[in-house]
Amino acid sequence: MFRDRVRMSSLLDKVMTADQAAALIKDGMTVGMSGFTRAGEAKAVPKALAERAKQEPLRISLMTGASLGNDLDKQLTEAGVLARRMPFQVDSTLRKAINAGEVMFIDQHLSETVEQLRNHQLKLPDIAVIEAVAITEEGHIVPTTSVGNSASFAIFAKQVIVEINVAHNTNLEGLHDIYIPTYRPTRTPIPLTKVDDRIGSTAIPIPPEKIVAIVVNDQPDSPSTVLPPDDETQGIANHLIDFFKREVDAGRMSNSLGPLQAGIGSIANAVMCGLIESPFENLTMYSEVLQDSTFDLIDAGKLRFASGSSITLSSRRNADVFGNLERYKDKLVLRPQEISNHPEVVRRLGIIGINTALEFDIYGNVNSTHVGGTKMMNGIGGSGDFARNAHLAIFVTKSIAKGGNISSVVPMVSHVDHTEHDVDILVTEVGLADLRGLAPRERARVIIDNCVHPSYRDALNSYFDAACERGGHTPHILREALEWHINLEERGHMLAAS
Amino acid sequence: MFRDRVRMSSLLDKVMTADQAAALIKDGMTVGMSGFTRAGEAKAVPKALAERAKQEPLRISLMTGASLGNDLDKQLTEAGVLARRMPFQVDSTLRKAINAGEVMFIDQHLSETVEQLRNHQLKLPDIAVIEAVAITEEGHIVPTTSVGNSASFAIFAKQVIVEINVAHNTNLEGLHDIYIPTYRPTRTPIPLTKVDDRIGSTAIPIPPEKIVAIVVNDQPDSPSTVLPPDDETQGIANHLIDFFKREVDAGRMSNSLGPLQAGIGSIANAVMCGLIESPFENLTMYSEVLQDSTFDLIDAGKLRFASGSSITLSSRRNADVFGNLERYKDKLVLRPQEISNHPEVVRRLGIIGINTALEFDIYGNVNSTHVGGTKMMNGIGGSGDFARNAHLAIFVTKSIAKGGNISSVVPMVSHVDHTEHDVDILVTEVGLADLRGLAPRERARVIIDNCVHPSYRDALNSYFDAACERGGHTPHILREALEWHINLEERGHMLAAS
Repeated sequence: MFRDRVRMSSLLDKVMTADQAAALIKDGMTVGMSGFTRAGEAKAVPKALAERAKQEPLRISLMTGASLGNDLDKQLTEAGVLARRMPFQVDSTLRKAINAGEVMFIDQHLSETVEQLRNHQLKLPDIAVIEAVAITEEGHIVPTTSVGNSASFAIFAKQVIVEINVAHNTNLEGLHDIYIPTYRPTRTPIPLTKVDDRIGSTAIPIPPEKIVAIVVNDQPDSPSTVLPPDDETQGIANHLIDFFKREVDAGRMSNSLGPLQAGIGSIANAVMCGLIESPFENLTMYSEVLQDSTFDLIDAGKLRFASGSSITLSSRRNADVFGNLERYKDKLVLRPQEISNHPEVVRRLGIIGINTALEFDIYGNVNSTHVGGTKMMNGIGGSGDFARNAHLAIFVTKSIAKGGNISSVVPMVSHVDHTEHDVDILVTEVGLADLRGLAPRERARVIIDNCVHPSYRDALNSYFDAACERGGHTPHILREALEWHINLEERGHMLAAS
Repeated sequence: MFRDRVRMSSLLDKVMTADQAAALIKDGMTVGMSGFTRAGEAKAVPKALAERAKQEPLRISLMTGASLGNDLDKQLTEAGVLARRMPFQVDSTLRKAINAGEVMFIDQHLSETVEQLRNHQLKLPDIAVIEAVAITEEGHIVPTTSVGNSASFAIFAKQVIVEINVAHNTNLEGLHDIYIPTYRPTRTPIPLTKVDDRIGSTAIPIPPEKIVAIVVNDQPDSPSTVLPPDDETQGIANHLIDFFKREVDAGRMSNSLGPLQAGIGSIANAVMCGLIESPFENLTMYSEVLQDSTFDLIDAGKLRFASGSSITLSSRRNADVFGNLERYKDKLVLRPQEISNHPEVVRRLGIIGINTALEFDIYGNVNSTHVGGTKMMNGIGGSGDFARNAHLAIFVTKSIAKGGNISSVVPMVSHVDHTEHDVDILVTEVGLADLRGLAPRERARVIIDNCVHPSYRDALNSYFDAACERGGHTPHILREALEWHINLEERGHMLAAS
């Protein structure tokens, strides 16, 4: 029953339709919405906004936690609502608009957006729209399947619209741990020293008078689109697990490894699934998104605790996990993305960060975002938050794409998201390159020998040898460095003869 | 008197010549030496090593805090001693050897070297050589003008050689604050919340039996090579100070700004000098290196406290500061570079980081290290430690170099050390670009309009316009993106017609 979920009864007179609530959002406003990895986004109000924009001019600056589900970015884009968008997205329609220069997209480290808001370096949201399972007796907001930036958006915004989603079970309450760093110059250390520490509150504490509208929605989160492991992703998982075994044998990690972080997507999910059959025990996660593999690992008795900022599951897993949440609840916590990704915590805990590369080069620079150096895919997300301070910064990708027209290992990446200083381990289905303590020329040797698809190995060796003859700490032939990308663009294959 | 400085008298039988001590260093060893920004490096033993290498094969892996003075990297390079070198250098002879592929140079974030050692991801030093003003009654080592990585090197190495430098005044004792993070997985927060907090000890605590040799040296640190401000650096300083005034007016900073970090070099020094005549009061520094300008600012009553990892002064300033250290001592602290540069602390304190770029591109990516994408200059140093987590990540450079043959603003940087995600403000003598909250196309407009030298503005506008016509979130024409660098290489001017 929807009204039972609004436990501060004086707020019940704020209940209204999505259209009425959406009318509070004016043309030109900055709006902060819940939603992270297509989990826990506000659903009714953005839909109503898109509808309204068909009748009247309505352009907003939209910030979220990360990606939205339920085609909301698509609908908002098609309706022309999005003037600006940050800090992440995964929608193909929005992506097209971004690449056409129609939507100004600000691609950010996911831990940094609210820090910049807190310091007034970005315009504060005029209004926040937050999905909730309930409002407490004190008027505090209990998030649903993600925390993302919701807490800070609600704190910074002058007005807050709450969407109570009755499709989410109320037993989600208690899962969240809302901690907000104090203001500079008197900020104190984040008092989190173990993945399972609880350091905050279970609801977002705001003055209840800021809640200007309460809307009901009953639409579930979109299911995740993660593909099951295939031969290549299984190969990547196997190389990585063998590497972990060697690290344990060498005494550099215990048999429970370090707290694991895995980026969203099929490859990272396959790697995590691979741990089910591994000899490691008492694993922990300190990650952004908890995917199917997290719960598979818990069920297998391998994973002791998982900290994230959201839960994004496939249709297969969804009913099972949320229908039996009590089975998992003492092994889970959802935090603000500022905390799940915070450099202070990542460095302190010694996280093993596993993220997906679009391409990497022979010196270990990683491109996570830009196809051909120009076209945005999704955004850097949290990969930089983790890679910079991780105990191990691991990037994974299949060695080739588009039936072999593209090599994921190139002479020079066409865009850099992670520099050689921040990359420890690279893995493709071909093998694993351990770059720790190596100079650029040594890195190139290890990467070419271990990660490159055989059909591109000779060409990369030729480039590297010729570049070394010309000299330099990081040998390159500038005239040829981006030739593979140009070939692809002009002729459809990276090694097409000109 | 040298012997008075060895206050644990049982250690006096370890006193020997530099040659005898250097003999403890064997071919193939990994050696950790003191020294940071040409301050406080061990001087006698490396010199003796270079001499010995003329007689017998001797190749070592050398790690330091940062750069060495007294031409030691030159002498070690010429003698062929250096097989591997990390994490930073500024010597032209060594640079040549690095770029020829003769010395394997591992260019690292300065906060990360000892973290990687602590986790056994790099080979631990077999032996450490640490310059000291004294050894305490407990056998602990009191560093001289830098802390750098000395404490961790002494802790990790099996054997420690101490160079007592009698050219340094003993009143340096008390200046240092040695704090070492605890081991994972039980690491606790770094308990530093203000620039003037003292959280450690004044000497490096090691078991005295690890001290295998004590050597005397009396050679002073090399003077800094910072040039006085010129019209361009003064222009950069003025733009930046005007910007700070606007930030204060907008309520985003107090009149004492935030803790300042300034990279080494003439431009950053000029900016700091510019603050003497500014309206700001009660300034603080939380930086790596304390240069002339630090003491000029203290003398002017502008700077309340300065935290660094080293003190590097010009001949002009040296005698005055160290001869009157009591005047400054309660306003200074020297910390391990892991702490002066630690992401946890940088983010907590909200540092204003001012570092020098070699070049930057129209989208805000910064190259700090590689000339023409291939040749190493010095290394990334601490710039990445600060820029990633700073309240303001500022990069400064003159708009042109080599008499106008080179534009510091280019279509695409030839090497990326700091990605667009980590760069807030760019300044040349032409003007200042505030990139906060901007999408790439907006960044390009602001950078071209504000930072580019007039002689390159039309060409950059043409490139940007043509790229935008082709589309993309970060529009580029790959075939032309590195053309300016190729022109320079082949024809001596970035805009030379082909």
